[in-house]
Amino acid sequence: MAEQLTVAIVGAGLAGSVLAAQLGGRGLQVEVYERRPDPRATGAERGRSINLAISARGLSALEQIGLREDAMAGSLPMRGRTVHPVAGDTAFQPYSADGRRAINSISRSDLNAALLTRAEKTPGVRIHFEHRLTGVDSQSGEMTFQTPDGPTILGAQVILASDGAYSATRAAIQFREGFNFSQDFLEHGYKELSIPALPGGKHALDPGSLHIWPRGSAMMIALPNLDGSFTCTLFWPKTGEGGLDSLRTPGEITGWFQRHYPDALELMPNLVEDYRANPVGSLVTVRCWPWVNGRVALVGDAAHAIVPFYGQGANAAMEDCIEIVRCLEEAGGNWPAALAEYQKRRKPNADAIANYALQNFIEMRDTVNSSIFRAKTAVQHALERRSGGRYVSRYELVSFTTVPYAQIRHRLRRQNRVVAGAGIAAGGVAAGVIAALRRRHRDPIGRG
Amino acid sequence: MAEQLTVAIVGAGLAGSVLAAQLGGRGLQVEVYERRPDPRATGAERGRSINLAISARGLSALEQIGLREDAMAGSLPMRGRTVHPVAGDTAFQPYSADGRRAINSISRSDLNAALLTRAEKTPGVRIHFEHRLTGVDSQSGEMTFQTPDGPTILGAQVILASDGAYSATRAAIQFREGFNFSQDFLEHGYKELSIPALPGGKHALDPGSLHIWPRGSAMMIALPNLDGSFTCTLFWPKTGEGGLDSLRTPGEITGWFQRHYPDALELMPNLVEDYRANPVGSLVTVRCWPWVNGRVALVGDAAHAIVPFYGQGANAAMEDCIEIVRCLEEAGGNWPAALAEYQKRRKPNADAIANYALQNFIEMRDTVNSSIFRAKTAVQHALERRSGGRYVSRYELVSFTTVPYAQIRHRLRRQNRVVAGAGIAAGGVAAGVIAALRRRHRDPIGRG
Repeated sequence: MAEQLTVAIVGAGLAGSVLAAQLGGRGLQVEVYERRPDPRATGAERGRSINLAISARGLSALEQIGLREDAMAGSLPMRGRTVHPVAGDTAFQPYSADGRRAINSISRSDLNAALLTRAEKTPGVRIHFEHRLTGVDSQSGEMTFQTPDGPTILGAQVILASDGAYSATRAAIQFREGFNFSQDFLEHGYKELSIPALPGGKHALDPGSLHIWPRGSAMMIALPNLDGSFTCTLFWPKTGEGGLDSLRTPGEITGWFQRHYPDALELMPNLVEDYRANPVGSLVTVRCWPWVNGRVALVGDAAHAIVPFYGQGANAAMEDCIEIVRCLEEAGGNWPAALAEYQKRRKPNADAIANYALQNFIEMRDTVNSSIFRAKTAVQHALERRSGGRYVSRYELVSFTTVPYAQIRHRLRRQNRVVAGAGIAAGGVAAGVIAALRRRHRDPIGRG
Repeated sequence: MAEQLTVAIVGAGLAGSVLAAQLGGRGLQVEVYERRPDPRATGAERGRSINLAISARGLSALEQIGLREDAMAGSLPMRGRTVHPVAGDTAFQPYSADGRRAINSISRSDLNAALLTRAEKTPGVRIHFEHRLTGVDSQSGEMTFQTPDGPTILGAQVILASDGAYSATRAAIQFREGFNFSQDFLEHGYKELSIPALPGGKHALDPGSLHIWPRGSAMMIALPNLDGSFTCTLFWPKTGEGGLDSLRTPGEITGWFQRHYPDALELMPNLVEDYRANPVGSLVTVRCWPWVNGRVALVGDAAHAIVPFYGQGANAAMEDCIEIVRCLEEAGGNWPAALAEYQKRRKPNADAIANYALQNFIEMRDTVNSSIFRAKTAVQHALERRSGGRYVSRYELVSFTTVPYAQIRHRLRRQNRVVAGAGIAAGGVAAGVIAALRRRHRDPIGRG
């Protein structure tokens, strides 16, 4: 039964390619429809989301399709953050208590290309590029596509829509009564810039960390690339004083960076050109319910686009794929039952990581820079080392485990009770907090 | 300048027709495009939102286009609610302290027909039926319509989109980056039924009040019609025990009404036929921002669809029209300035009434039935009578004044302070509250 049906996947991004490889690997007939031409032929779009930080959840999905090692060979591990103040020394903050765990900087286009190739090589999987979905009947499974040869109508028993935050599939079913939906944009936008490699291909900054220039209401981050360069991303208000649209002349651009990002400016010879050429991206959170409508199920960003500040968008999307396959196995190949269970399990997790991602923007651009935050992190790491695994920080639970996002809150509450009850390392913790509070009023950089 | 431009209005419902009459009356060229055929020729749709309760805000808009008297001649004033318990006597609760103010039950299709005729008679206004908007360029003002003669492309300098909760115009601009949007459906749906006139055309219930059958998680209401009938609306969960889809056979339908709405059942000879023939409607709250995008401005339900439980959807939409005209006058005919000001002023009001409408569902189906609620209302009305106009209830501020919705909260807080400070009628209030609390535990109907 399960072997005879056709599964359509709309969108051949990260989630779509992973799903195709997974489902093809289970003997299913999988037809993948992608709006764009083959990116392996055309290359990446300029200035749009060049790097990803892949961590435990994404790695787990890559593992399932046997691509973990290959993908990791093309990535750079980042074991912590390096914070760049306007003046003074940078500070390194490890992500984990032992300082060894890392999130992995990887090129989105390289990873997508590897996933496409893997999907394409899977028996039963076919990828159709330049197929733009223009309509779907969620009850019959009939889809209409615009192609270079004109419009075409195709059918499938199951339609998995992994076509992103601005999902055409979702738009086609959005006005069904009972479909709750929201899209919320931040007032901040993003723009990508570059720090080129030094002569000889060396990185101009530590390639083993994620770099942050927190500036209160705005920030810049940089992730290392294999070729020795860094991809920088500005997260600034779109308009107003210090807004992305407020700098126009070369003098304004370099002047602003001189005042706020002086150490980076020295490393950015193409700043003015990049700033003026690269587009401003938007940051949107999409929430909706139900994810399953008739034969159509939303997956990844199409179901739950989140802002990038926890580095979890791609990881969460790939975790959806794992869950779909798990539910399909548990339901013995019964797709309606599997998809009903998939949405039920994943929705609370998607909601949780959406909120964490929004909260982390505040932390990254602001608190991360303050001595109180640094002290808190140091205290948490001390707790982790002394608690014998009973205390793990939120950042680590999100990035270095596959504990469901929605359970992290309960886990944190529970371990806080345990820590309080046992009085673990109470002396050390108290000393750290007190020291942090004492330093607070002479913090030269942070707001508090 | 303002005289030469063309204003397009998309949607010839209540707001669209009012706007057309208002703007035509100011000498503007107004082209109205309506998806449906002329409703004056085709009649109303079966079972969909037959009655409206027009109150102060709607009346104020009708006044501006000289239609208040005509419209009111076709309406029935409702001076309060009559609450129908499962067993026992009905109870009348006046809406105002003096018992004289009324909201007005009116046929939506009659009102819409009168407004269309008024708009059509206004020089400069043309109405084009069977024009379904399929696309809009908010920058150039170019609109595409599907018509019986095929697709047509038309332009306008200003596009006012009054095409309802499922606005096609809004859908066409929804995926502009930065457009925040949400649609939230209640789990309750609605279905319309009827209590026919008695022989001789007499009303079977008091035609001077709105009738409510509050049943905790569900309710029925009935509004009087001029012909002696009542239009009943069930607001029930869509599915599950007691849900709209749970009653199928004649026995199930009459059995349920016998248990929960026995006094109404006696008056509903067509219950089974109506129940099975009439569709289930959905209840949606739409919130979005900005309302103005390029040349396009959203008006009424297209900008802020709300649930019907305060009887304010049509009133709020017509109040938008008043505000647009006011802003246009203040801006000396400068449309971009006028629309920017319109959305800024109206958005907080739309948010406020959306929340009040959601809250009032709880009150109507539940609290309105309890002795504590009745006592509270009696106390409020006593306060109003004794405070010399300093104390006015929320219901009255919403329904019988044009105080901006968003200011009602502040007004209530202020007058509560005044009342508390002055100790007005403190003895009476306290006695009422105490009596209500005493009655609480022997309340035979309400939940508390």
